[in-house]
Amino acid sequence: MTKTLATAPFLAACRGEEPSRLPVWFMRQAGRSLPEYRALRGSGSILDAIADPSISAEVTLQPVRRYGVDAAVLFSDIVVPVHAVGFGIDVVPGRGPVVEQPFAHERDLERLRPLNPEQDIAYVIETVEKVVEELDETTALIGFAGAPFTVASYLVEGGPSRTFTKVKALMHREPELWAQLADRLADLAIAFTGAQIDAGADAIQLFDSWAGSLSPDEYQRFAMPATIKVMDALASRGVPRILFGVGTGELLSLMATTGADVIGVDWRVPLDVATKRIGNHPLQGNLDPALLFAGETVIADATRDVIRRGASAPGHIFNLGHGVMPDMDPDALKFVVDLVHTEGVTIAKEAQ
Amino acid sequence: MTKTLATAPFLAACRGEEPSRLPVWFMRQAGRSLPEYRALRGSGSILDAIADPSISAEVTLQPVRRYGVDAAVLFSDIVVPVHAVGFGIDVVPGRGPVVEQPFAHERDLERLRPLNPEQDIAYVIETVEKVVEELDETTALIGFAGAPFTVASYLVEGGPSRTFTKVKALMHREPELWAQLADRLADLAIAFTGAQIDAGADAIQLFDSWAGSLSPDEYQRFAMPATIKVMDALASRGVPRILFGVGTGELLSLMATTGADVIGVDWRVPLDVATKRIGNHPLQGNLDPALLFAGETVIADATRDVIRRGASAPGHIFNLGHGVMPDMDPDALKFVVDLVHTEGVTIAKEAQ
Repeated sequence: MTKTLATAPFLAACRGEEPSRLPVWFMRQAGRSLPEYRALRGSGSILDAIADPSISAEVTLQPVRRYGVDAAVLFSDIVVPVHAVGFGIDVVPGRGPVVEQPFAHERDLERLRPLNPEQDIAYVIETVEKVVEELDETTALIGFAGAPFTVASYLVEGGPSRTFTKVKALMHREPELWAQLADRLADLAIAFTGAQIDAGADAIQLFDSWAGSLSPDEYQRFAMPATIKVMDALASRGVPRILFGVGTGELLSLMATTGADVIGVDWRVPLDVATKRIGNHPLQGNLDPALLFAGETVIADATRDVIRRGASAPGHIFNLGHGVMPDMDPDALKFVVDLVHTEGVTIAKEAQ
Repeated sequence: MTKTLATAPFLAACRGEEPSRLPVWFMRQAGRSLPEYRALRGSGSILDAIADPSISAEVTLQPVRRYGVDAAVLFSDIVVPVHAVGFGIDVVPGRGPVVEQPFAHERDLERLRPLNPEQDIAYVIETVEKVVEELDETTALIGFAGAPFTVASYLVEGGPSRTFTKVKALMHREPELWAQLADRLADLAIAFTGAQIDAGADAIQLFDSWAGSLSPDEYQRFAMPATIKVMDALASRGVPRILFGVGTGELLSLMATTGADVIGVDWRVPLDVATKRIGNHPLQGNLDPALLFAGETVIADATRDVIRRGASAPGHIFNLGHGVMPDMDPDALKFVVDLVHTEGVTIAKEAQ
């Protein structure tokens, strides 16, 4: 039986309709910050946990139970599709994605064959199905993928980077090879998110986490085309498409023209400023995660400020301006959820 | 004998006057990226090298000789003043500033006594004097200090941070204690830069490297007052005051109201966009340092693009959008300097 989420506050806000309450969820809400997650998981690779539907479904649901957030976000990783097609990538605890043989030559394109979801990521499909069965009809499930540039940055750099020298050299020096790489990663993201939608995901977020390392020109020339391809391919699926990156203040107006329905904003850009740059798109964000460590008075003030500024957009999904940190106190996140739910609509109406 | 630098291109551009050539220097031009630096220095603490005027003067001059840049920047570190008053801080190779006992309580203010330049940093004064003796009259010497927020972030976090949770908690929860801390650090920066000017420095740059981690509201409430205090104190000294931080796109219009004469811009904000936000200030920047690894064709295109966009400002000092990286090829930097010097004025005029 297909569930109907017509009344889900998260989806209403994504469509620019009036939600019954201000929706809230947190990027990286599932995972290391939760004691019930640490109790469930051993010390193995996160990719092993993701490949076990009973574990990953449970981990996806943990923050929904604890916080009462308006959306679950699939417990997965942006490198899952490239891992699944055998590119040779692992996620090393405390370090992040590490690639045995970084992408460097045209012949490396062959290592990025098309994804066959039923064969390559049956576990993701099963996880989505399990989660959807458990969620009530007011709670959405957000599937996701990495945007081509951000995934490419790991493949080319060989791991996490702060300078992105190799991936920038590749895009500038070999723009045709770069376009082919980005195109293959777009195809992987399309197949990966498509399978999640088929299995029941209600929305898709594309994480272009490191897009903020690019200048606007670079973003437009090298990152946007493949991102647009993903957005276009998902357009007919009828689920909201969210696009998010960190440090993207200069890119917001470009991101708003990719076809994304909702734009995620980090904490650096106040949402009323973002609205001016973005125009007629609902926004997602953007409480500074660092403030979760500053006590309830500070958290409450900052949460209300985000709500007031978010009221400038045609829809607002409350979130942090970046992912939950591993050492964050779950009680502080619960405090935010309760405040957003009890005061959100009232504060937003007063601010309008 | 006091030198007159009336014709120095760097100073002309800082004053919004027409320079004889487009001036260029690089943040972190002195140091690890140069083989002659690595040959000169042992493996000890950088603070020991800074404390030796013969070494630090030589290191300051090395990039001037190699590149023919229009300004030397003092080989020093933003933690020198807090180190000199005995706060208990060291710079650990490969890690950065590390504080034995981080700042946490009101009593820690006592650990930040006033700086007595002649006693505490006689070696800095001697270094400046040695460098000024060696520089010709077209080459300026830039002195510098860390802006109070950025220095405070090290003292409170205990070392480099990517999340700034402790310093943000302090400023929000104990704004009065924070203001006292920032004020003491402003006094240290004033004494530190004042001594450099007394000894012959021609300009001062205030590095607020991590200001970009703050929201505009946080910057205005918590970082600006102490920065303004420094700028005000230097106003009567008649040397250009440059203010720079990374990821400051949302802060540029605020930074332009601190009293700074010149605003440094990172590579994320094209200089013509920065001009619109900043108004009537010369700009410094902003070639993406990552592109230095992408070969001469890419470097040349990007350099010319920066020059064209920089022509929108009432003055432009060419620089990178961030510091020189240790593994950067000095030949690539030399290539940039030569291109800026030979083509800069022509390209800028055509763009105007």
